[in-house]
Amino acid sequence: MKVGVMNKLRRRKQSNENPADDTKPNGGNLLVNDRNKYKSMWIRTHSTLWMIGAFVLIIYMGHLYICAMVMLIQILMEKELFNLLRKVREDRDLPGFRLLNWHFFFTAMLFVYGRFLSQRLVNTVTSDKVLYRLVSILIKYHMVICYFLYIAGFVWFILSLKKKMYKYQFGQYAWTHMILTVVFTQSSFTVANIFEGMFWFLLPASLIVINDIAAYLFGFFFGKTPLIKLSPKKTWEGFIGASVTTIISAFLLANVMGRFEWLTCPRTDLSTGWLHCDPGPLFKPEYYHLPGYIANWIPWKEIPIMPVQWHALCLGLFASIIAPFGGFFASGFKRAFKIKDFGDSIPGHGGITDRMDCQMVMAVFAYIYHQSFVKSQSLSVESILDQILMNLTFEEQLDLYRKLGEILQQKRFGQH
Amino acid sequence: MKVGVMNKLRRRKQSNENPADDTKPNGGNLLVNDRNKYKSMWIRTHSTLWMIGAFVLIIYMGHLYICAMVMLIQILMEKELFNLLRKVREDRDLPGFRLLNWHFFFTAMLFVYGRFLSQRLVNTVTSDKVLYRLVSILIKYHMVICYFLYIAGFVWFILSLKKKMYKYQFGQYAWTHMILTVVFTQSSFTVANIFEGMFWFLLPASLIVINDIAAYLFGFFFGKTPLIKLSPKKTWEGFIGASVTTIISAFLLANVMGRFEWLTCPRTDLSTGWLHCDPGPLFKPEYYHLPGYIANWIPWKEIPIMPVQWHALCLGLFASIIAPFGGFFASGFKRAFKIKDFGDSIPGHGGITDRMDCQMVMAVFAYIYHQSFVKSQSLSVESILDQILMNLTFEEQLDLYRKLGEILQQKRFGQH
Repeated sequence: MKVGVMNKLRRRKQSNENPADDTKPNGGNLLVNDRNKYKSMWIRTHSTLWMIGAFVLIIYMGHLYICAMVMLIQILMEKELFNLLRKVREDRDLPGFRLLNWHFFFTAMLFVYGRFLSQRLVNTVTSDKVLYRLVSILIKYHMVICYFLYIAGFVWFILSLKKKMYKYQFGQYAWTHMILTVVFTQSSFTVANIFEGMFWFLLPASLIVINDIAAYLFGFFFGKTPLIKLSPKKTWEGFIGASVTTIISAFLLANVMGRFEWLTCPRTDLSTGWLHCDPGPLFKPEYYHLPGYIANWIPWKEIPIMPVQWHALCLGLFASIIAPFGGFFASGFKRAFKIKDFGDSIPGHGGITDRMDCQMVMAVFAYIYHQSFVKSQSLSVESILDQILMNLTFEEQLDLYRKLGEILQQKRFGQH
Repeated sequence: MKVGVMNKLRRRKQSNENPADDTKPNGGNLLVNDRNKYKSMWIRTHSTLWMIGAFVLIIYMGHLYICAMVMLIQILMEKELFNLLRKVREDRDLPGFRLLNWHFFFTAMLFVYGRFLSQRLVNTVTSDKVLYRLVSILIKYHMVICYFLYIAGFVWFILSLKKKMYKYQFGQYAWTHMILTVVFTQSSFTVANIFEGMFWFLLPASLIVINDIAAYLFGFFFGKTPLIKLSPKKTWEGFIGASVTTIISAFLLANVMGRFEWLTCPRTDLSTGWLHCDPGPLFKPEYYHLPGYIANWIPWKEIPIMPVQWHALCLGLFASIIAPFGGFFASGFKRAFKIKDFGDSIPGHGGITDRMDCQMVMAVFAYIYHQSFVKSQSLSVESILDQILMNLTFEEQLDLYRKLGEILQQKRFGQH
């Protein structure tokens, strides 16, 4: 039973066999004896290098370009996923029904990014009075506008219901909403991370890539014990090797990335210009003395560690232990619906969605982690001040200042 | 073809015929010639009166009891909806799998209400230091706690995946998420409305009930022209009669409800005690002079109208034109999955979910309408002040006060 699993997968795709049937663990190395293995690795390496190159270029170009990239990936994912449950015959009988998907997509787009970007826009475009008012109206009535767009889609859906197609149409409606919710949650958190400082986007994303590559390499060379039935190609050796690699990389990478203001400063406008800021105590190295018996072996007596590196350890831990479950989930999903890949946009990798499964889980974690453990300790005064300056008129600001003054006066009297 | 539609529905249920097949418009009155019609109306009237009675009692008891009622309704709905796609045979092979639904339910519960109620709790329980700290931690790490509960469920789901059950399990997972999203969105908006002032919950909810009853009565006595294929019992006469009734009721009811501080004051703590507040200009009547030719016929020369009554017109418009689509959606859904009702908890009405379809659409609208057109004009200074006092330490408050002072000073110099 030394036939490679990838060969199996390929045959399975051709014969449309049930993929859940042949997931028995193989006796020997899971991948080493595959004839197509080296060719497949070569293709995959090639496209991986291209992707990393393009990615580095975009990082260099700045926040807006990264956001554009995230949105592009998002659109491609929605497209792949919308098409998954599409049935051509039913669609022919429902002209315009697929447009509805994209109506909901653009509503979600306006809802998520309209709010997010326009608050920043106001800061940037104060010189143009007309645009300023337009954006102010959009901010103020943003929720209502999006709600009515949604309701329009809802009514459209109901009026488009056609006899004998009910089940297909309701299924499509539910599916569209699922996809939009999952993909938008993820991508809006990603964009939020980017503006908090590119560090909080770049480090988590890199850790997932490192973990993927390390798992692939460790599995390739040492893989023996199958990890989970859902993904017959994954091995315990790959999983553990990747975890150790990822956690160490997280610690070191945070130190490197933490040195660039381009990566650590938050971006508060919509320009792509250079960033200068005080990166704050998180990114100021603290010097730890090494104990004598270690210091004898290496030339340094003390090592500089930035506090952010301890946070990076948590991100690394999550990226290697929990995030892979995003991949398992996608594998299980593909098995349930008997498809091999979500698409075929990237040679050797499958669809965009196949590469994004763990990234999505990670982006949400990075956002929540940053909000709960990093941001709340240093930025809350600033963020409330931002709120005041952006959402209130000058008279309201004065009013707030006066009221706050009175309350603080009272409190101070209460204390003394 | 004068056989009543309700009889048809009954027969259809027994014979498991495809309900989408016999929706042709009948020639004459749709309901008047039904033998079971009067009996069915009697049952429905009875349970409607009971429900209204119980509802009035709960309104009298206060905000917390209403919230409890909303949550109870929510749990019953989740139960009805979870059970819809349940398959007993599959569940037997998956011990503990249904528990997962409720794990996600309680996570969502903690996420939605934990955050919402605890901000108010802090105000109420400042005397107890231990509880205060506990609640503060819950607020601060609320998102992380909920996220990890969710991730635990996610991992649990993946580990529980069983060969040949993938499709059923993924379907259940998606279904659970759909239900939780829809029902929680609705109920959390409802609870938010309640604390903004019971008015903003009670008026929209009443308008839906009035619209339902009016549509039923108008349809019963005048119904001739079928409105939409999805719901063969609904008629244009019922729809239009109900719209006019609802819009007029909205205008009048707002005037009545606007007189009670119990209904108009927002509730900012978790007690159930009496409320006193300045209800604000929205609820202060303005006097409109009637033109002479009307004033000759009635004893008043001018009529008092509260500004909130104009808002009520918008709510009435929505409740009668758009909210019924919630009902059409539910009808279509029931047709698609070939069920008559979502449950059978209320005699003559079906399940709780059958009565809540339009309420759900309305509650979300009422919330968004209130936030966008009512609250933003008067309360934003207060809400930011609340934020400052609840989320910042005393030192941070002083810091904010000082920084805001400096900025306002600069702005003032800029102006003069």
